[in-house]
Amino acid sequence: MTALAPDPRGDTARAGLRTLRIETPSWAYGNSGTRFKVFAQAGVPRTVREKIDDAAVVHSLTGSAPSIALHIPWDRVDDYADLARYAEAAGVRLGTVNANVFQDDDYKLGSVTNPDPAVRRKALAHLLECVDVMDETGSRDLKLWFSDGTNYPGQDDIRDRQDRLAEALAAVYERLSGDQRLLLEYKLFEPAFYTMDVPDWGTSFAHCLELGERAKVCVDTGHHAPGTNIEFIVAFLLRAGKLGAFDFNSRFYADDDLMVGAADPFQLFRIMCEVDRGGGLDPATGVAFMLDQCHNVEQKIPGQIRSVCNVQEATAKALLVDREALRTAQRDGDVIAANDVLMDAYNTDVRPLVAELRVEQGLDPDPVGAYRRSGYQDRIARERVGGEQAGWGA
Amino acid sequence: MTALAPDPRGDTARAGLRTLRIETPSWAYGNSGTRFKVFAQAGVPRTVREKIDDAAVVHSLTGSAPSIALHIPWDRVDDYADLARYAEAAGVRLGTVNANVFQDDDYKLGSVTNPDPAVRRKALAHLLECVDVMDETGSRDLKLWFSDGTNYPGQDDIRDRQDRLAEALAAVYERLSGDQRLLLEYKLFEPAFYTMDVPDWGTSFAHCLELGERAKVCVDTGHHAPGTNIEFIVAFLLRAGKLGAFDFNSRFYADDDLMVGAADPFQLFRIMCEVDRGGGLDPATGVAFMLDQCHNVEQKIPGQIRSVCNVQEATAKALLVDREALRTAQRDGDVIAANDVLMDAYNTDVRPLVAELRVEQGLDPDPVGAYRRSGYQDRIARERVGGEQAGWGA
Amino acid sequence: MTALAPDPRGDTARAGLRTLRIETPSWAYGNSGTRFKVFAQAGVPRTVREKIDDAAVVHSLTGSAPSIALHIPWDRVDDYADLARYAEAAGVRLGTVNANVFQDDDYKLGSVTNPDPAVRRKALAHLLECVDVMDETGSRDLKLWFSDGTNYPGQDDIRDRQDRLAEALAAVYERLSGDQRLLLEYKLFEPAFYTMDVPDWGTSFAHCLELGERAKVCVDTGHHAPGTNIEFIVAFLLRAGKLGAFDFNSRFYADDDLMVGAADPFQLFRIMCEVDRGGGLDPATGVAFMLDQCHNVEQKIPGQIRSVCNVQEATAKALLVDREALRTAQRDGDVIAANDVLMDAYNTDVRPLVAELRVEQGLDPDPVGAYRRSGYQDRIARERVGGEQAGWGA
Amino acid sequence: MTALAPDPRGDTARAGLRTLRIETPSWAYGNSGTRFKVFAQAGVPRTVREKIDDAAVVHSLTGSAPSIALHIPWDRVDDYADLARYAEAAGVRLGTVNANVFQDDDYKLGSVTNPDPAVRRKALAHLLECVDVMDETGSRDLKLWFSDGTNYPGQDDIRDRQDRLAEALAAVYERLSGDQRLLLEYKLFEPAFYTMDVPDWGTSFAHCLELGERAKVCVDTGHHAPGTNIEFIVAFLLRAGKLGAFDFNSRFYADDDLMVGAADPFQLFRIMCEVDRGGGLDPATGVAFMLDQCHNVEQKIPGQIRSVCNVQEATAKALLVDREALRTAQRDGDVIAANDVLMDAYNTDVRPLVAELRVEQGLDPDPVGAYRRSGYQDRIARERVGGEQAGWGA
Repeated sequence: MTALAPDPRGDTARAGLRTLRIETPSWAYGNSGTRFKVFAQAGVPRTVREKIDDAAVVHSLTGSAPSIALHIPWDRVDDYADLARYAEAAGVRLGTVNANVFQDDDYKLGSVTNPDPAVRRKALAHLLECVDVMDETGSRDLKLWFSDGTNYPGQDDIRDRQDRLAEALAAVYERLSGDQRLLLEYKLFEPAFYTMDVPDWGTSFAHCLELGERAKVCVDTGHHAPGTNIEFIVAFLLRAGKLGAFDFNSRFYADDDLMVGAADPFQLFRIMCEVDRGGGLDPATGVAFMLDQCHNVEQKIPGQIRSVCNVQEATAKALLVDREALRTAQRDGDVIAANDVLMDAYNTDVRPLVAELRVEQGLDPDPVGAYRRSGYQDRIARERVGGEQAGWGA
Repeated sequence: MTALAPDPRGDTARAGLRTLRIETPSWAYGNSGTRFKVFAQAGVPRTVREKIDDAAVVHSLTGSAPSIALHIPWDRVDDYADLARYAEAAGVRLGTVNANVFQDDDYKLGSVTNPDPAVRRKALAHLLECVDVMDETGSRDLKLWFSDGTNYPGQDDIRDRQDRLAEALAAVYERLSGDQRLLLEYKLFEPAFYTMDVPDWGTSFAHCLELGERAKVCVDTGHHAPGTNIEFIVAFLLRAGKLGAFDFNSRFYADDDLMVGAADPFQLFRIMCEVDRGGGLDPATGVAFMLDQCHNVEQKIPGQIRSVCNVQEATAKALLVDREALRTAQRDGDVIAANDVLMDAYNTDVRPLVAELRVEQGLDPDPVGAYRRSGYQDRIARERVGGEQAGWGA
Repeated sequence: MTALAPDPRGDTARAGLRTLRIETPSWAYGNSGTRFKVFAQAGVPRTVREKIDDAAVVHSLTGSAPSIALHIPWDRVDDYADLARYAEAAGVRLGTVNANVFQDDDYKLGSVTNPDPAVRRKALAHLLECVDVMDETGSRDLKLWFSDGTNYPGQDDIRDRQDRLAEALAAVYERLSGDQRLLLEYKLFEPAFYTMDVPDWGTSFAHCLELGERAKVCVDTGHHAPGTNIEFIVAFLLRAGKLGAFDFNSRFYADDDLMVGAADPFQLFRIMCEVDRGGGLDPATGVAFMLDQCHNVEQKIPGQIRSVCNVQEATAKALLVDREALRTAQRDGDVIAANDVLMDAYNTDVRPLVAELRVEQGLDPDPVGAYRRSGYQDRIARERVGGEQAGWGA
Repeated sequence: MTALAPDPRGDTARAGLRTLRIETPSWAYGNSGTRFKVFAQAGVPRTVREKIDDAAVVHSLTGSAPSIALHIPWDRVDDYADLARYAEAAGVRLGTVNANVFQDDDYKLGSVTNPDPAVRRKALAHLLECVDVMDETGSRDLKLWFSDGTNYPGQDDIRDRQDRLAEALAAVYERLSGDQRLLLEYKLFEPAFYTMDVPDWGTSFAHCLELGERAKVCVDTGHHAPGTNIEFIVAFLLRAGKLGAFDFNSRFYADDDLMVGAADPFQLFRIMCEVDRGGGLDPATGVAFMLDQCHNVEQKIPGQIRSVCNVQEATAKALLVDREALRTAQRDGDVIAANDVLMDAYNTDVRPLVAELRVEQGLDPDPVGAYRRSGYQDRIARERVGGEQAGWGA
C-alpha cells in the first residue's frame, strides 16, 4: 500500500538493477516492417559502425545496455577485431552472434533441414562461419533461429527434418570452444505456416539436452501460441538448467515484435519474477537478456531506450516482491493473500527508484527525455544521408 | 455411404458448379513472401498483361475463373479500356478493383484514418481514382482493405479514427454509380498490431449499414481470431443481405494466405454449405468469390488452379448435402443423424463428379496435370527474362 | 514520472471515482467451479437474503457496490417487493435481473432457438417472467445471456436459429416499459462448442439495432476470441450509442471468470480509458458496470472486494491520463510520446489516491484488510451451517 | 483421382485396420456436461458393469474397440478380478487405469503438487492404489492426468510444484512392475486458469525422460493452445520413443471433448499419417489409441461408435498415402506435388473399404445404423431406471 519501496527490499531491487545487463540488437536500429511495407526513417544507420554508435547512445543513457548483438551477414565486416575495437571505443561490446540462414534463394525450402544436401551443407558452413566470427569478436553466444519449416501438409517429412536438424546442430556444437555457447531459439510460426522445425520450447529443450551442457534454450517472448504461459516455461527451464537467453519484445497477436512491456507489462513482470525466483538474475546463471524487436512506426533509438527502461522497471518490481510473505501465504493456501503480495509489488511505482539509481550512476533520471534533448536524432537525420539504410535485407 | 452421388443431388451439384465463378487476383501471379524474405520464382510476370495471360491459362484449364482482380497502383496502366480489350482477347474479364493505400511512406500512421488531414485527402483521392478505373474497366466492385491501425496503446484515438473512416467511406460511396458496389474488408491484425480500424465483421457491417444498399462486407477467410466460426458470419451476413464477397485462402495461424482449402478443407465445406443455405450460389445474390492468396514456396499458376479446384470440390460437396434429410434430423433433435447427413456429403469423393463436368465442358479432367503437361511453365520461365518481376511492391 | 498525480487530473480522478458504481452478482457469493469439481466453501449463503447480506458487506467496505444483480430462478422468491425492502435495510439495492434459460433438461438443444416450438415458448415465458420480476424490484436492466448453440456441424440450422432468436427478443422488447432496458450479452463458446447463437459483439449489435433504442450490448470481458481488442469494441459501441453494460472478470484462456484485473490489469486500464473517452463514466450514458466472476479457489467476499478495488484503480488511472498531452502527441504522430502519456498514468500508483478517497467517505483505506479484521468470515462460517449452499444450480 | 484405393495400398490399409485397436473410456457412457449443466440421458449406466455392457456393444459392432478404460474411483469395485471376468464374458477387456486426484475437497489447491504435504500424501496413496488395481486387472497402463495448477499469479510457487510433482511421479514409477507403464498427460488449461503443472508436451516429456523407459507421454488432442501443430508433436515423440498414448477427441475452441474427427477431420488424418510414418501403428511400438470424449448433447453409444469409425477412416486414408510418390515429390522440392499426394489419399472415400472389411469380419457394414436397428438403446432406456446414473462425479 505504500508508493515507495521499503528497505531492505528496495536495497535488493537496487542491487539487482545495478548488475542487470540488457543487450540491444544491431538490427533494431535499421529499418523494419511487415510484408506490406517497410517504412524508411530518417537517420537510420547505413553501416554496422553507425549501428554501434546508436547502441552506444542507448547504453550511455541507460547505463544498462553495454553490448550489441550482431547479425551475420547483415553485419559482416572484413575485420571483426577492428570492429570490436571500434565498439569498445564507442563504449559498448560486441555481443551475441546471430546466424542468418533464411535469406538466400536457396533457403526457400529450408536451410539445415532442406531436402537438398547441398543446401544443408551451405547452411552449415554459414553457421560454422558464425563461430569463426565469435572467435574473433570474443562473443560468448551463438544464437540460432531457424526459419525452416513447411507451408503445406506433405511438403516435407517432419521426422527427416528433425534428423537433419540434429545433425547440423551437432556439427556446430562440436565446433564450439572455450566458454562459447549455442542458444537454440524456437518459434511457433512465420515464416513457415504449417510446420516450423523448432516450433516450441519442448523441441528446443530436447535438442539442447542431446547436445550437452553448452546448448541452451532461447525464449523469444513473441514466439508462442496464444494463451501460452511464458513464465511457466522460464521457471521450468531455469529448474532444468537450460534457460540460456531471452529475446525480449511484446505482442498482441503474433510475433509483433513491439517494444518489450508495451503489450502486457504484467506478463513481463511475471516473467522477471520467475527469473529472479530461479536465480536467473545472478550473472553466474548465464541467462542473457536481449531485446529483439522492430520499431516499424516509432523512432528506433528511443524505442530501444524505452524497452531497456521497461525491462528495468519490471525487474525492479519483481525484486520488490516480499518473498517471505509470499511463501507464507502460499504455504497457508491463502490464494488472495498470495496474489496480493505479488500485486503489491506490481502496483508500486518504481520509476522513482530507478531514476534515483540513474542519478547515482551519473545519468539523467529520464533517458528518453535526455535523448530527445540531446539533439542526436536531428544530427543523424542530417548526417546520415546517401548510402543504403540498414534493414533486414542488408 | 455411397461413393457416387445419387441423382437428383448430383444434378443439383452439377448445375451449381456450372454457374460458379471464381475470380483470381493479379497479385497471386507475382512474387510474394514474408517480412523475412520474398523468394523470386522463374517465369513470374513483369507486367499486368503477363498477369492476365496467366489468369487466362487458369481459366482455360478450369473453366471457372473468367475474371482477374486488379490492384491499383500495382496494375496501373494508361489505358484501361485497352487493357480490358487485351483481357477479353486472352479470354478473361477485368474484375474487382482493389485499392492500395498502404505502401506510400505517407501512410505509416494510416491512410483515411491518419491524424494528418493531408494524408487523408491523398488517400481518399486514390480511392476515388479507383472508381475512375472501374468506370473504364466496367468493374462492378471496389474492394477496400485498410491496413490502417495503431501499434501501441495511446498511439491514436480509436474513436476519431472511426469518424475519419466513416467520412472517407461516405465520400467514396457517394461517388459510385450504376451497379457499382463498395466491398469493405476487415482484418484482425497485421500490419497494425494493436488496433486495426476495421478489425472484424461487426465493424465492417456497421459501416456498410450506415452507407447503404451498395456497401457490402467482404469476408477474407484468413482475417479472423483463432476459433472464430466463419460460417456463422457467412450465414449471418447472408441473412442480413450484407455479404458481398469472399477473399478465399487458408491459414493455420494468422493471415497465412495459403491455397484455399489447404489448411482446413472441412471449414471450406462448411462455409460453402452456409453460402448455399443462404442462397449465395445464386448469382443474383451478388456474392463474389475471389481468391486472395500468396504462393510463397509453391508455383503460382498451379497454386491458383489447385485453389479453384478446391473451391469447386467444396461447393460440390455442399450441394450434395441432403437438405431434406438434414432438416428432418434437425427438427427431430437427432444430433448424430444431423451431423451424419452433413458428413456423408463431406466424405464423398466428388473428384469424379467434377472431372466429368470438365469433360462435358471440353476440358481436361485434371487441370493441374494438364498445366504441367502444357509446357506453359517452361515457356514463361524461358521467355520472361529481364525486366522487373511483379511483386507486392510493383 | 511523478508518483503522485498532480491536480487537476487528481481532482478529475477523485470526482470520477465518487460516482462510479459497480454491481456485484448474487451468484458470486455462492459456490462455483468447473465441470471437474465445485469446491464447497465454508460460510457460503444458503438463501438470497444471505447473498444480499454478503453484497452489503462488500458495499459497506468499498462504498462503490450499492446494488446486487439477481439471477432467476436461482434467486426466485415469492415476494420481490419484500426482498427489495430487505436489501434496502441491508444497505443495497436490487439491480439487474439475469434470466436463466440453460438449466432445464428441455434446454439441451437450445432455449429460444430450440428447434422445438414448445421449448421456445417455455423459454420465452421465462424471459417475460423476468420482466415481471423487474416490475416488482424496480430493476432497470434485463440481462440476457443465451447458452444456445450447437456442438456439431449440421446439428441445427444457423439461420433458422437467428430467426427464432429475433422473434423471442422482439417479444421481450415489446414487453418492456418505463425505463427498462434489454442487455444482450454475447459469448464465443461454452457451453456450446460449435456455434453459439450470439457469439460476438457484431451479432448482439445487429439484433439490438433491429430492436431499438432500449436494447444495448453487454460486454463480458471473458467472452472473446484470443487476441480480440476489447477496448476497440468498447470505443465502437460507445460511438454507436449501443454499449449497455459490462460483465467484468478476467481470463488467461477462455471464460475463466477470474477476479477482474487479475489476468491483465493493463487491459482493464485500456478498457476504462475508452469508457472515459466515450463518456461512459457519465451515469447519463447508462453504462452499467457489473462483476460476473467465479471464486472457485479463493474466498468469495474478499474476491468481490478485490475486484471492486481493481475496477476503481483502473478507473483512477484512466482518469489520470493527460488527455491534452495525449491529443497533442497523437496529432503530431509522435508514437512514443503518445504511448508514454498513457503509460505515465498506468504506471502511477493510484492506491494512495483511492485510499484517501475511502477515508474521505469514512471507510477503511484498505477494504480487504478491513474485511479480514471484521470477523465476518468466521461468523458466517460458524453460522451458515445446514441447509443447502447456493451454487449455480440453485 | 480414383475413388477406390488401388492395391497394394488398399491391402496395406486393410492390414493396418485389422490390427487397429481403440479403447473406449468407461466415463463416456455416463452423463457429462459443462459447468452450466449436465443433461441427463435415458439409459445411462448406473454401474461399472453397465458401462462394460455398453462398451461391449461398441466393440461388437465395430470389431475394433476390445477394451474399456477404467477411472478410479468412479469405477471402483471390491473385486477387480471378478470385474475382469465380467468384462471378458461380455467380450471386452479392462484397459488403462485412470487415476482421479481432482474431486476431493482436499484437492482444491492441488493434489501431488499441493502445498500441504498431507494432501500430497493422500494423492500419492491414491496413485499407488491405482497400481494395485492394475495388478488385479492386468492393465498395462496407468494414465495420470493432473488438474493441479493455480488460478492466480503468486498463488503458489511454480518451481516448488514441479519438485513435488517429480517426487510423486518417481514414487509411482518405482511402484510399477512387469510391463506396466506410466502415461503422463498434459493440458494447457482447465480446471486451473493461470498455470497447469503439466501444461504442455515439453513438460510431460521432460518428466518422462527423467523417470525412465516406461514413462511415456499421452497426447490428448484437445489439450493444446490454438494453432498448435499436434502431428508435429506426434512425429517428435515417436522419433524420441516417448509417445505412449492418445486420448482422442476433437475441439473447436478449448477442451471441447467432441467426437474425434468431428471438428477437424483433416487434422485427425494428418495425425494418423505421422503415427504411421513413425511406426506407431505397429502394436510393438506400444502406442495406445484411446477415446476421451463427452457426449453432452448426443447419444453416448452411437457417439462412441461414430468416433471409432472416424479413427478407422482417418487411419485408412493415412495408410492409402502413396509413400513412395510422396518421398519423391519431397525430395524434388515439388511442394504442390507433395501436397497433392497427401490430399489424394485424404480425398478418397474410404467408407467402402472400411465397410468391406467389416463384412469380412462378419459385422454390419454400417455400425451406427446397426446400433439404431438393434433396439439396444430402447432397451437400456426402459431397463435402466432407478439408481444413480453414472457421471463425472460418481
